[in-house]
Amino acid sequence: MANKIYIAQLDSIPGNIEHNKNRAVEEVKNAIRKKADLIVFPELFLLGYPLGTVLEKYPYIVNQCHCAIEEIARISKNIAVLIGYVEKNHDKFGKPYYNSICYIKNGSIERTIRKTLLESNFEKKESSCFESAEIDVKNRIIELNGEKIGILIGEDAQNDFEFFERNLYKTDIVSTIAPHCDILIVPSCDISRTGKEQIINNLMKSTAEKYKVKYIYVNQAGANDELVFGGMSRMYNEHGKIIAMAKAFEQDNIIVDSVLGGEIKTLPKGIELNKNEFSFDYESDLERTYLAIITAIKGYFSKNGFKRAVLGLSGGLDSSVCAVLLKDALGKENVLGVSMPSKITSNESKSDAQKLADNLKIHYIENPIKETQELLNKNFEEMFNKINWCKRYETSYTNDNIQARSRATILWGIANEYPETIPIATSDKSESYMGYATINGDMSGGFAPIIDVTKTKLFALARWLNKNREEKNAIPTGVIEKPPGAELAINSKTGKPLCAEEALMPYEFLDEVIWRIENYNQTINDMINETFLYEKKNPISKEQKLEWLEKFFRRMQNALYKGYISVPGPIIDKHSINKAEFKQPIVSRINYKGE
Amino acid sequence: MANKIYIAQLDSIPGNIEHNKNRAVEEVKNAIRKKADLIVFPELFLLGYPLGTVLEKYPYIVNQCHCAIEEIARISKNIAVLIGYVEKNHDKFGKPYYNSICYIKNGSIERTIRKTLLESNFEKKESSCFESAEIDVKNRIIELNGEKIGILIGEDAQNDFEFFERNLYKTDIVSTIAPHCDILIVPSCDISRTGKEQIINNLMKSTAEKYKVKYIYVNQAGANDELVFGGMSRMYNEHGKIIAMAKAFEQDNIIVDSVLGGEIKTLPKGIELNKNEFSFDYESDLERTYLAIITAIKGYFSKNGFKRAVLGLSGGLDSSVCAVLLKDALGKENVLGVSMPSKITSNESKSDAQKLADNLKIHYIENPIKETQELLNKNFEEMFNKINWCKRYETSYTNDNIQARSRATILWGIANEYPETIPIATSDKSESYMGYATINGDMSGGFAPIIDVTKTKLFALARWLNKNREEKNAIPTGVIEKPPGAELAINSKTGKPLCAEEALMPYEFLDEVIWRIENYNQTINDMINETFLYEKKNPISKEQKLEWLEKFFRRMQNALYKGYISVPGPIIDKHSINKAEFKQPIVSRINYKGE
Repeated sequence: MANKIYIAQLDSIPGNIEHNKNRAVEEVKNAIRKKADLIVFPELFLLGYPLGTVLEKYPYIVNQCHCAIEEIARISKNIAVLIGYVEKNHDKFGKPYYNSICYIKNGSIERTIRKTLLESNFEKKESSCFESAEIDVKNRIIELNGEKIGILIGEDAQNDFEFFERNLYKTDIVSTIAPHCDILIVPSCDISRTGKEQIINNLMKSTAEKYKVKYIYVNQAGANDELVFGGMSRMYNEHGKIIAMAKAFEQDNIIVDSVLGGEIKTLPKGIELNKNEFSFDYESDLERTYLAIITAIKGYFSKNGFKRAVLGLSGGLDSSVCAVLLKDALGKENVLGVSMPSKITSNESKSDAQKLADNLKIHYIENPIKETQELLNKNFEEMFNKINWCKRYETSYTNDNIQARSRATILWGIANEYPETIPIATSDKSESYMGYATINGDMSGGFAPIIDVTKTKLFALARWLNKNREEKNAIPTGVIEKPPGAELAINSKTGKPLCAEEALMPYEFLDEVIWRIENYNQTINDMINETFLYEKKNPISKEQKLEWLEKFFRRMQNALYKGYISVPGPIIDKHSINKAEFKQPIVSRINYKGE
Repeated sequence: MANKIYIAQLDSIPGNIEHNKNRAVEEVKNAIRKKADLIVFPELFLLGYPLGTVLEKYPYIVNQCHCAIEEIARISKNIAVLIGYVEKNHDKFGKPYYNSICYIKNGSIERTIRKTLLESNFEKKESSCFESAEIDVKNRIIELNGEKIGILIGEDAQNDFEFFERNLYKTDIVSTIAPHCDILIVPSCDISRTGKEQIINNLMKSTAEKYKVKYIYVNQAGANDELVFGGMSRMYNEHGKIIAMAKAFEQDNIIVDSVLGGEIKTLPKGIELNKNEFSFDYESDLERTYLAIITAIKGYFSKNGFKRAVLGLSGGLDSSVCAVLLKDALGKENVLGVSMPSKITSNESKSDAQKLADNLKIHYIENPIKETQELLNKNFEEMFNKINWCKRYETSYTNDNIQARSRATILWGIANEYPETIPIATSDKSESYMGYATINGDMSGGFAPIIDVTKTKLFALARWLNKNREEKNAIPTGVIEKPPGAELAINSKTGKPLCAEEALMPYEFLDEVIWRIENYNQTINDMINETFLYEKKNPISKEQKLEWLEKFFRRMQNALYKGYISVPGPIIDKHSINKAEFKQPIVSRINYKGE
C-alpha cells in the first residue's frame, strides 16, 4: 500500500503546447524507466502561465491541448499521470474553458478534475476565461494501489477557514476532500515573492497536521516574462514535517515514496523569513532575490532567442549590480559593458566601471558622449531660439536628458548591430517610483533585472554578491560607498555632480515609504504619525517629513505615465511596482492624505 | 403617474472622489432647479473606470466614497438620486467590495443595489475586487410617484438568454425584474468601439419590446487613458423606439418624461453600422472614429495637466492625420509640428509637411538631423571597430534607427523645455502589429492617437477629414497619394526611399489579416483558404500568400516586446492592439498555423 510518485517540476513556454507536451513526454518516459507508479505535473502545465490573452486570441490551441493529452495517454500504459491542461467548457453557459487536471490510468483518460477557486489577481487572471467548477468530492479522489489520493488544483487548497482571517471564497474545499484521503496532491503554479513561500509553507503544514494527511505540492520552475516560479515542490507527512523537497527555481524531478518521502534538497536562505516590520536587514532575503533574478534573466533570454546583453556601466550601484547578475545568468562572454562618460562624469566613476568589468572579465569599451552632447546642445539652443511658442521653463532638464538619451541610442545601436543582443534597463524600484529616470534614456531597454529591488536593498545585495560569489569583491568598494547619483547635472551649491538623495530624499526614508504603502496601504496622514527608522538616527522636523511625503506622492503620481512604458523585469517583492501588477490609471488622481 | 428623470451623462476622474462628488453635487442642484423627480448617474460614477489597482492600493478612498454619498444625500431633500459608488463588503467571505448604486430618497439613503454580473474583461476587470451580489428582486425595484422602476447595473442587463447564442452567466436577471416594472433604469459605463454600440442598441431595444417596458440607459462620457466612453444615454419606449437621446462622447444632461421621453440629439454616423465582412469602405465608421480620438486626446491632456503637443511632421500619412486630430482637440496654438529631414528625406515630403502646417496654421519649424546623423554614424563605426565581441549583422538597421531616435530626442527635448508639453507617438495599428517602428524613435511619445487605426482606414480617415472639416483639404494630396514609407533607408533596386509595403506586404493584404485575426481568430491554415479582397484585384500565388502570412505572424511574434512598451492611445476597434487589452506573454510561442 504505497506508491512511487514522480514529481515533474518543469518550466513551460506559454501557449507552446508542442514544446510543453514534448517536455511532458520526456518526463513520463523517464518516470516509467524509474518505475514510478504516478507522475504529477504542475498546474495548467500544457498551456503555461501567464495566460495573458492567449486563450482569447488563439482558441485553437485548446484543441492542441486535447491532442497532447491523447498523445501522452498513448505512452502511459505503465504509469498513472496527473497533468494540467485547458479543457473546453461545452455547456451553454459560463466562461469558455476549465482549468483542469487530466488523470490518465492504464493508458487512457480516466477522468478530468476541474478547478473551482479561480484567481482573479494579476498573476493568474483566471476569471476571464475559466468557469469555476462545482465541487464533486468523488471525482476529486482517485484510488491507486490501495491509496486514496485527493486532487486539489492551486488555489483550491488555499481557502482554509481557520488559517486566514478573511476568505475570498465561500467554500473550504480541503475540508470536504481531505478527511477521505491518505494523500493530497496539489499541482500548482506559484511565483516566488518576498514572504509568499512562508505563507504557503505554513498553510500546507497546517493542512497536513489538521487532517492527518500527507501533502504533495508540485510547483512550476523557471520564469515567464515577469513571473518567476519558485519550484520547491515538496512532500509533508501527516505531522506537517517536510519529508521531500525539490530544488528552488530550477527544473527538477524527485521521486517520493508515498509513505517514506524522499530526498530533501537544500533551499536558498530567506525561505523561512516572514517579517512584518520594516528593516534594513535584508540579509535573509538576498539569496532568494539573487536566484530569482538570475532565473528571470535566463528564462527571458533563452525563450526569446536572445543570447547577449549590452549595458551602460556608469560606475554606479544599479549598473554594477546588473552587470554581475547578467554575467552570472548569461556568461561573461555574452555581456558587454559600455562606459559612456560625459563632461560631468567623474574619474572615479570611469575607473570603477573599468574595474568592475575587469573583475567580471566581461567585454568592455569606453565610448564618450561629449561630442554628441555638445552637438545636440548647440542644435537644441538654435532650435529653441527659432520656436516662437510659449515661455520656456526657467530650469529645464533638457541637457540632463540629452546625456541619458545619447547613451541609450548607443546601446540600442549596438543591439541593432550584433545578433541576439538586447540592451538592459538598469532602473531600480526606488527610482522607478519617483520617476527618477529618463524616457528613451536609462528607462529604456529590453529587460529590467532590478526593477523590483529598492535602493537600500540593492546596497545590501551588492555587499552580499561581493561576499558570496566565487569571484570575491567584484563590485569595487567605491561603487558601494559613494552616494548614488545619475551624474547628469551639477549641484550649484557644491559644484559636484548632483546626488540622487539631494534631488529626491534620503533613500532610507524613501524605501520605508514604499514599504509602508506596499504592505499597509498607508496614507500621508498615517505616515506622518509613524516613526521611521531614518528618523531614529536623523531627527527631522515634522515640516521636513511632510515635505518629503508630499514630494513622494507628487512624484509618484507624475511618474505614472513613465510606469506605463516601463520595461519587463522580474517580480521580487511582496508587492511590486512592475506594471504587470501595479496598474494605476494615468489620469487617476487620489487624495493620498486619506482624508 | 409620471416622473421627470434627469440623466446626468458625466465624465469622471478615476479615484478622485472629491472631484466626482463635486460634479455630482452640481448636477443634483441643477436637476432640482429643473424640478426633476429623479437624477441618475453612470455606473460606479464616484469611483470612475478603469479600476486598475486603485482599490487594492488605496482602500481608504472607499470611505471617501461613503462620505460623498452622505454629502449628496444632505442636499437631496427635494429629489431622488441613483448614484454609483463602491461599497465595502462587511461579510467574512468574498471579495472586499461591491459595485453598488445608492438610492437616495427624501434626503436619506433609502437602500443600496449591488451588481451581480461582474465583468472580468479588460475594460472593467471587476472580478478581482468586487463580490457578485445575490439577486434580490424586491430590493432592485423602487417605487417613485406610483411608478415601479427596476434597477440594473451595467452587465446585469446584458445576459439575455434569447439574445446571445452563448451566455457568460447562468442568470438572466432582466427576466426576473422586468416583468414587475414600468421602467428599467440601467446605469452603465460602456466604452465606444467599432460595432459595440450596435449590439448594445439591439439588446436594449429587444429588452424593451420583449417585456413591454420603458428602458433608460445612462452612460458615462469622456475618456480615461485608453477608454473612451460613448455617452449616448437614451430612453426606449415599450415598443423599443428611441424617445430620448443625449450627445455622443461629451458630457450632457437630458430630462426625460417617464411617459413621453425627451429630446433626441443627433448621433455621429456609424452608430448603426454592424458589418461582419471585411471591406475597405470605412465611411460609416469614420465620424465615430474621429470623435472618439478627439475625446481621448482632450481627456488625456486636460486630466493630466498637459496643454501642448509636439510631433514630428514627416510629410507622411500618420503624422499628418495626427496633426489634424491634435489641432482639433487642442487648438492650433497648442500644436508644434517639427520637420526633421535627413539625407534621405525627399523634397516632396518636406514641402508636404510645411504645406500641412500652413493649412492647419499650427506652429512649425524645420530642424534637420543630418549633422547629428553623420556624427552618430561616424561614432558608431569607430565604436563597432573597437568592439571585439561577435560577428555583426550583414544587413543592419542601425543607421535607419539612428534617424528615428535622433528625431525622438529632439521632440522629447522640446517637451523638456516647454511647460505642459508632450510629444506624440504617431504609430498606427498596422505598423504596430508588424513592429515596424523604432523603439526610442517613432514608437515613443506621451500619447498615441492612432495606435488602434489600421493604415487603410487611415487613408479613408484622411480623405474624410479633408472633406468634412471646416478647413477643407488640410492634408496635401501628395500625402494621401504617395505610398507610405518611413524614409529611413534606400531601396537598393529602385534607388528611392524604401516603401513600407516593400518592407512588409501590401497594406490591403496586411489589414485584412489583422481583421481576420481580430474578428475570427483565424490561423494561417484558415486564411490560406480564404479569398482576400486584395487577391480579387491582384491575383497572387499560393506561395506568395503563404510567405506574407508567415511573415505577418513572425513579425507579430517578434514585436511582442515592443508592444509591451507601447504608448497609451484610445481603443477604437472591436478588438484592439492596445496593450491594455492585447496581452500576449512576450515569451509565449503559438503554433499560428493552428495544426
